[in-house]
Formats: sequence, C-alpha cells, structure tokens
Amino acid sequence: MLNNIIEIGMLYDFYGELLPQKQKEIFGLYYDDNLSLSEISEEYGLTRQGIHETIKRGEKKLRGFEEKLKLIEKYKLEGKSITVLIAEMEELILRRKDDDELVKQLTEFKEAISGLDR
Amino acid sequence: MLNNIIEIGMLYDFYGELLPQKQKEIFGLYYDDNLSLSEISEEYGLTRQGIHETIKRGEKKLRGFEEKLKLIEKYKLEGKSITVLIAEMEELILRRKDDDELVKQLTEFKEAISGLDR
Repeated sequence: MLNNIIEIGMLYDFYGELLPQKQKEIFGLYYDDNLSLSEISEEYGLTRQGIHETIKRGEKKLRGFEEKLKLIEKYKLEGKSITVLIAEMEELILRRKDDDELVKQLTEFKEAISGLDR
Repeated sequence: MLNNIIEIGMLYDFYGELLPQKQKEIFGLYYDDNLSLSEISEEYGLTRQGIHETIKRGEKKLRGFEEKLKLIEKYKLEGKSITVLIAEMEELILRRKDDDELVKQLTEFKEAISGLDR
C-alpha cells in the first residue's frame, strides 16, 4: 500500500505534466494533498465515481509513460551508481584524512556528484 | 539548419516513444534514415503532403513534451556539470601523478562519472 503510494508519487513527479490539466489537478489533490474522493467530487461538482475513474485513468496513463520512457528506472539505476561512487569517495577521504588539500578537493567532488542525483 | 536537425534528433531520442506508432515510424524514416518525403509517401501509399503534415505534427508534439518535461534541458545542464567535474579530476590526477594508488582510484571515479552521462 505504502509502496504503491510512493510509486504513484514518483510517476506523478516524473510524468504529471503530461496529463491533461484537469486530470492532473484531480490527481494532485488526491495523491499530493490527500483529499478524499468525496471532497474532490464536491469541489468539481462531479460524482465520487467520476473522480475515482479520472484518478484510475490518470494512473494508467502515468504507467504507460514509464513503460515507454523508463525515466524512473533510469533514475533509480543512476541513483545506485551515485551512491556507490559517494561511498567509495568517503572511504578514500578517510584513508587520506591527513592530506588536507586532497580531502578538500574530494569533498567538493563528492558534493558535486550528490548534486547530480536530482 | 544543421542545428535544427540535431535538435529534432534529440527530441526524437528523448520523446519518440511517446508518438503514436505510425507517426513515430514516419518521423524516424525522415530524420533517422534520411528518406525523402516522396520515398516515404510511396512506402505508405499516402500523399507527399500528408507525410509532410504528419512529420510537422510529430515535431510539434515532441516540442510540447520538452516544454512540459524539460528532459533535454536537464540533460544538457547535467552534461555541463559532469564535464566540469571530469576536467577538475583530470587536473588533480596531473598534480598527483606520482601517487599511484590515488591516480588509479581517481581514474576509476572519472570513468564512473563519465558513465553517468548517458
């Protein structure tokens, strides 16, 4: 359940902009702002069932985008490479902790690499 | 002209999968395989003008995806950060060229970072 919400949150972060405006809004109210179906249906003057279907359709579209572009898959893979790289840099920093110039430089590299992990 | 073709090539690499199948094919034949409008129109039994419009519509869609997701903009920015980082690493390797263990380790980091620039 929680995993599912996290996954849908990522799908929405990566591809939400590609949804039609109203669908995007309704999706955001439900998943980002945690409004209930009833609250959203009141706000839009639509049935609770209509809102439910809009959200389900949006979810399906988002999954379709990931199947085609695989941005999340690539993001996760890159994240893993970056994590490994940073751990190795930290080990090197520890091994060379008395070399001030080197530690300073490696720390800067490490921060720049962390910054790549958007 | 060349810039335009490179730009459209990148748009197609990043977002081509989101085009409907036939539009994607026609677009690829024109921009990837450099077929002429006439050649493509023969292959599909469509008018030259029809093919031209399909390509123009595809181009517009691809630009729309970039406006929304900005993947190419982010890719270019990340590419610049990686280029700077690699140059700094190379300088450090030069300054410390007599420290074999360090040179080996930094070279490995450098290669791992180059690999991030997909």
